[in-house]
This record gives sequence, C-alpha cells and structure tokens, in this order.
Amino acid sequence: MVAFKNNRLLFERAKKVLVGGVSRNNLFQKPHPFYAQYGSGSRLIDADGISRLDFANNTTSLIHGHAHPQIVEAVSNQLQKGTAYNMSTAIEVKYAELLCSRTKGFEQIRFVNSGTEAVMTMIKAARAFTGKHKIAKAEGVYHGTYDYAEVSQNAIPENWGDVQKPNSNATVLGTPNSILQDTIVFPFNDTEKTLLLLEENKDDLACILLDLAPLRIGLTTASAVFVETLFRWTRKNNVILAIDEVVSYRTNYSGAQEAYSISPDITSLGKIIGGGLPIGAIAGKKELMQVMNPNSIPTLYPQSGTFSANPISIIAGYTAMSIWDEDAISRLNILTNIAATQIEEAIRIADIPASVSKVGSLLQIHFTPTAAKNYREYTSANSNSMQTFYQHMFLEENIILLNNTCVLSTAHSRTEIDQLSEAILNGMKKIKPFLESIA
Amino acid sequence: MVAFKNNRLLFERAKKVLVGGVSRNNLFQKPHPFYAQYGSGSRLIDADGISRLDFANNTTSLIHGHAHPQIVEAVSNQLQKGTAYNMSTAIEVKYAELLCSRTKGFEQIRFVNSGTEAVMTMIKAARAFTGKHKIAKAEGVYHGTYDYAEVSQNAIPENWGDVQKPNSNATVLGTPNSILQDTIVFPFNDTEKTLLLLEENKDDLACILLDLAPLRIGLTTASAVFVETLFRWTRKNNVILAIDEVVSYRTNYSGAQEAYSISPDITSLGKIIGGGLPIGAIAGKKELMQVMNPNSIPTLYPQSGTFSANPISIIAGYTAMSIWDEDAISRLNILTNIAATQIEEAIRIADIPASVSKVGSLLQIHFTPTAAKNYREYTSANSNSMQTFYQHMFLEENIILLNNTCVLSTAHSRTEIDQLSEAILNGMKKIKPFLESIA
Repeated sequence: MVAFKNNRLLFERAKKVLVGGVSRNNLFQKPHPFYAQYGSGSRLIDADGISRLDFANNTTSLIHGHAHPQIVEAVSNQLQKGTAYNMSTAIEVKYAELLCSRTKGFEQIRFVNSGTEAVMTMIKAARAFTGKHKIAKAEGVYHGTYDYAEVSQNAIPENWGDVQKPNSNATVLGTPNSILQDTIVFPFNDTEKTLLLLEENKDDLACILLDLAPLRIGLTTASAVFVETLFRWTRKNNVILAIDEVVSYRTNYSGAQEAYSISPDITSLGKIIGGGLPIGAIAGKKELMQVMNPNSIPTLYPQSGTFSANPISIIAGYTAMSIWDEDAISRLNILTNIAATQIEEAIRIADIPASVSKVGSLLQIHFTPTAAKNYREYTSANSNSMQTFYQHMFLEENIILLNNTCVLSTAHSRTEIDQLSEAILNGMKKIKPFLESIA
Repeated sequence: MVAFKNNRLLFERAKKVLVGGVSRNNLFQKPHPFYAQYGSGSRLIDADGISRLDFANNTTSLIHGHAHPQIVEAVSNQLQKGTAYNMSTAIEVKYAELLCSRTKGFEQIRFVNSGTEAVMTMIKAARAFTGKHKIAKAEGVYHGTYDYAEVSQNAIPENWGDVQKPNSNATVLGTPNSILQDTIVFPFNDTEKTLLLLEENKDDLACILLDLAPLRIGLTTASAVFVETLFRWTRKNNVILAIDEVVSYRTNYSGAQEAYSISPDITSLGKIIGGGLPIGAIAGKKELMQVMNPNSIPTLYPQSGTFSANPISIIAGYTAMSIWDEDAISRLNILTNIAATQIEEAIRIADIPASVSKVGSLLQIHFTPTAAKNYREYTSANSNSMQTFYQHMFLEENIILLNNTCVLSTAHSRTEIDQLSEAILNGMKKIKPFLESIA
C-alpha cells in the first residue's frame, strides 16, 4: 500500500499546472503537499480520507472552524440573490456599523479583498494624507505581499546588519532599490533604537506599520512603553500610526489595540472578518479616510476594486463576527489559557527546553527555555526543530499546526484541547533526541 | 413621495461608516449611490424595488449574469464542505487544468484574490525572472491599483506632456517619485514612439504590461503590428511581455491574445474566471512561473495569500468557465454584433454624431463620429456627454451601463438587446440638445 495515495496522485497532476503543485507557497511540504476533501468544525479531512484536528484554521482566518451552520445558511441564502453587483448593499452598511461599534478608532471603513490589499491601501492612504512617502516597519514581521510591507520579512544573519540600524532586505528578487530605501526597518520593542531611526526619517515618513502581536517574531506582544512612545512621537511629526490587525484582531473584542492607551489613526483588518471568505478592510479616523472620498474633487486617493465588499464575503463576515461576541471571545481565550497550561505541563513531563507564548486564541511553541522576544532570537531558535516537530504532529498525530502556532477556534472544546496536549507530549518525547543532538 | 427613499436612507447611514457611502469609488454617483437588494439573471433590483437591466455585470466580471443556477448549486454544495483550508484542493487542480487547456501559453497557473493582486504578482514575477525593475505601460490604461500599474491612469491635458514621451503621473497623492521614474508610459498602438521609449530603458526594463482591448481608451484593440513588434522586441531584450487579460479574457475562448501571432510570457486574469466570486490569477510559461516554486532554494519570489484558491471562488469559477464554452462565446459575441448594429441604427435615427466600438461581448458608445483611437482622444471626447447619457439611462430607462460600456452576459437574449437598443435611442434623443449646446 502506498501511503497517501490520492494526495500523491493529486500532486503529480497539480505540479504540471500549478507552480510547486500549490497556489500558496506556505502550503507546500515535502515530499508532497496535501489536498483537502472537506472540513467540518474542528477537523480537516484530506484526499485519502485522513481526518486531522485543525489547529491552523486557514492561517488564523477561521474563528468558528469549518462550515459553521449559521455561516453556511447565511451565505446559501445570499447566493440566491447574487454574489456581486455594480451597487453597494445594505448588508455592507450594517457590517461597517458593526465593526465601527466594536473598536474606538474605527470611524469609517473601506472593504477590500485580502489582507495584502488592506495593508497596501492603508499605506497609500497614509501617503495621500501626509504627502510623504516612506514607511517604517519592524524587522521580520509579515504584513502581506505589497513590496514595501514585505521588506526584511525573511532577513537572515548574513544580510540583516547591525541591530542599531537593520538593513532593508528584499524579499523578492528584482525588488526596486528605491523600495528598500523608502522602507525603514526597526527592531521590534526596542524603543530607543526605533526612535533614533524614526527621527532620522521623520520628514519623509508617511506611516509606522505595526503588528502588536506578530506571529513571526515569537508571538511577542508589543510593550506598552514601545507602542505609547511611538504613538506620541507620531503626534508630533505628522506621521500615521498604522496598526496591522489582520491576524491580531481575533485576540480581543476590539482587537489587540484594546490593551493600549492609544488611538491608532488607521487599522488594517482581514482573516476572521471574512467569515472564511476572501476579505480585507481598513478602518480609521474619518479625517484620514476622507482621502478616498469619491465626493471630493480631486479625490486624493481614488480607490476601487471589483470584488470589494461583495455580498458573499460581507454576509459571511457579518455572521461570523456577530456570533464572535464578548462571551465567545472570553470562552475561547480561557480555553487557550488551559491549552497553554497543559502544554507547559507536557514540556515538564518531556523534560525538554521548550516554552509557550500566548495572545488571545493564539499560542506558540518554542524549543528554547524562554520564548523568543524579537525576530533575531526567534529565527535563530526555531527553524529546524520546529520543522521536525511540525512534520511529526501532521503525519503521526494527525494535528495540523500553523508552523509552531496553535490557532484555536470556537469549534474547539476541552476534548480537542486534551487531544492536542497529548499529541504535543508525544511529539516532544519524539523530538527530544533530535533536540539533544543539536544542543 | 420621495423618490428612491430606501436608497437615500441607506446612503444617510452608509456615509457615516463607509467613505462616501460606498466601498468602491466607482460605485459613487450623485446625488447618492444606489444599494442592491438582489440580482437575478439579467436584472438588478435596488433597495426601492426598482428593477434595472444590468449591462454592467459587476464591472465585466459576471459572464452568466446574476445567480446562475449551476453556479449557485455548485457553491452551495461546497459551502457544506468548508470555504478555506490550509491545504490545496482537487478542484483547484482541475480548474488549473481547464484554464491551461484553453490558452496556448498557459503552462502553469497561480491563483490570487483579485485582478489587482494578479497584476502585482505578474510584475513581481517579471522582476524576479529578469532581475530588472522597471515596467512599461500604456497611457490611460487601467490595470488595477498596484502603484506601478496605475501610473498615468488618469492623466489629463495639464500633466500628460508630449506624446513622444508621455509623463508618468501619480494617480494617488504621495506616490513615491521612484515609482513614477520606474514606470515608462507609452502611447497605445503607436509602434514607433513606443519602441523609442522601450529602447531607452531596455537595460532596466522587466516587463511591458499590455491590455489588448483597453476599456478606458475607447475599447480600441491593439493593432497586430503593434503587438507583434513589441513581442519581437521583448525576445531580443530579456523583457517579459505581460498581457493583462483581467477584462479581455471574456472576449474569446483563449482570451484576446488568440487574435495575435504571439505567445505571451505571462497573462493576468480575474473578473469572469471567479464566476462572480473574488479571484485573480497569473498564467504563463513554466520557465517563468518557476520563480515562485516553493521547492527551489532559495525561492526567488515566495508568493502566498490566505484566501488564494479558496474552494468557493474556485468552484464558482470552474463552473462558470465550464459552461462558458466555444458555443456560448460564439452565441454571445453574435448577440453583441446584433446589439452594435441596432445601436448604430439608433444613432442614425437620432441623427447625432456618435459611434460604437466593440470587442467580443463588450460594446462602447462614443459621442464622436468615430470611436476614439487612443487615451488622449478618448478623454477629450467622452466625459461630459457620457455622464449625462449614463444618468439618463440609469434613472429614466432603468438600464445599468458601465460608464459608456455595455457589458453583455449569457443571461441576455434578443429581448434584452431590443430593450437596450430602444432605451439607447430614447437616451440619444434626450441628449441631442445637450450635444448641440456643447458643439
């Protein structure tokens, strides 16, 4: 018997017509990627009928797991009425009202089609408002695939330079040099170094792009002093504080920004706000959002998109967010605390140098005694052991992680958390000799 | 009685939370935008229950009109199985196979979420492949909202400069100057001038971005000599010929490129290939597409997207394109010919200086004796009269146009075309005094 026969056969077909046999590079794995048959609640079933517990949730975008009945029903009804029009809709107004009611600084919204589009739109709005063109972003943080936003996303020791002034590295070959020059890279949570870099560029700086709990630097949260100092600095220097909550919006009722005494000018959203369908959005202060106003002449930033606010993504998102209320959030965040405690217990039992970081319904495993606190620590510590661990979890334990992150959804209960913890304990025992061999 | 009461009330609510009361600037109209209740086949019904014949089809993206039963059924079934996974799917492989079978140069595909993302991805792939960073594009042509692609999209006489070397104008305030410098603007269909501009920049040029039938310069098709000369020039100069068929793919079984003896390196797709759901794609030669291969180290262009190839957009697109076969295309293109003939007859009866241009299932009305042949002619001729005509068609005739373009779908039959032609005749009679007053 060939293991994963259908998956392998699909890969053979796929690699002829899809680059690498996938449509998203991060779904590629060796010796072959996997192909889904269907998802149901907390489970994802592959082409060979193997059912896995899904703790990736489409890269954090599914807050209610797969095929939530209320979302299925709402979208099915909308389908009968059409999927896209050359008119706005009442439901897009209602959804904008709901999101504006949740977060203090969300005065006006513009829907787009993806997190990448949201971040691009946010940066362009900041440029149009300030008349300046540079952006600043933290080293190693992922903000989608707009060229400026992805600078130094994959920096490595060979190219990242002095931490006092990190190099701006291209993520894609052929990236224009001017994009690197116009993107200031700062060390996350290092207030002093960051302020120096910002001061140097203040006359050209349109915005600071900031994720408050970035996955790719260890799920470390931004410190209050870092965020609040940056916020005050932007007030004095005609710079926009642009918060990227595409991922972190799931951590709290109002997003991760709820925890800080700041009021961001503009925020990008995506992932969970689509209820499982493609979406992105920017939400911000009315004064800033006016740069896109089609009723002002000239419009400083004429923004459009054929599928923006299509009623299918909107109704799915509206339904998902309506049931993602304070109670649901509180329950899921408590469940995530329980998961973290159980995984810490597994670490003790397995007796390996590992640790856990956690924000809201996201949880990350590190094969170091304490969690990484910045990109340079994180990159150095995680790659090889995590790859081995991920593969074990996927192939042997039938658990899908998002690299080293566990992404919870309301489809998870204590039962799934117990299964996860037990599987992680097995994985840790299995990886122990590997960790010892590289120590 | 207040006309459009529900639409007005929705606008009052909408403008508080959505910039300009809409999510897409091109849906704004004065004194207020309109809000859809539902679409059905060839008709779109607004919040006041007014039913209009839809000849905009969500900015060309609906090739089968609203809520086509086969698409509704296919998507409804998929909804039960989930909308997005951290795995690829068999249907995305099947859909890639279908698209590759339709067009000669489509060897491999990558799905993304919108036309904007497709054009951005195509330009980045061209840069990664050539190691060069500039792009060239035609003045006035719309290619989505990626900064480079939208340069000089709204050029006006005051800033467009000498046609020998058109200026690169920002579409959004605050656009970095380097983006303008790195984008070469050429005059569409002017082979001689274009070649001179390309020659000047050949050492830095990654790609020529080309729409073969651009809507915003009069639905003029690119001449064979223009396209074939450019194609041969790119072969000698390590430049990618990047064809944007986001709109024009609907004009033929293999797209507009079918009419030329060229084999483009890469093509961007969107609109109709989503079956009414958000999508974009790039399709091209395997050698070029390999820049994104996740199985090569390093990957020159690591490309991903959370919602890329989500099974909802994919099943909708696959279903729509399966029934958009040679017969369906032939029938719709013939119907469009009939529409053009009838509108030309209306022009004769109304006795006004107007004309029609036509490609595939798209048809454009011009208030000049012959259709504009380039952006400068088109912009000078169309704006005021078209705005008046559009408003009349929308408000008095209950016909939705896409500015001055009629977009047909398989939901249209002779009945709707007769209604369209009659309404256009009424509109032309109404606009005649206005045309005479500005003559």
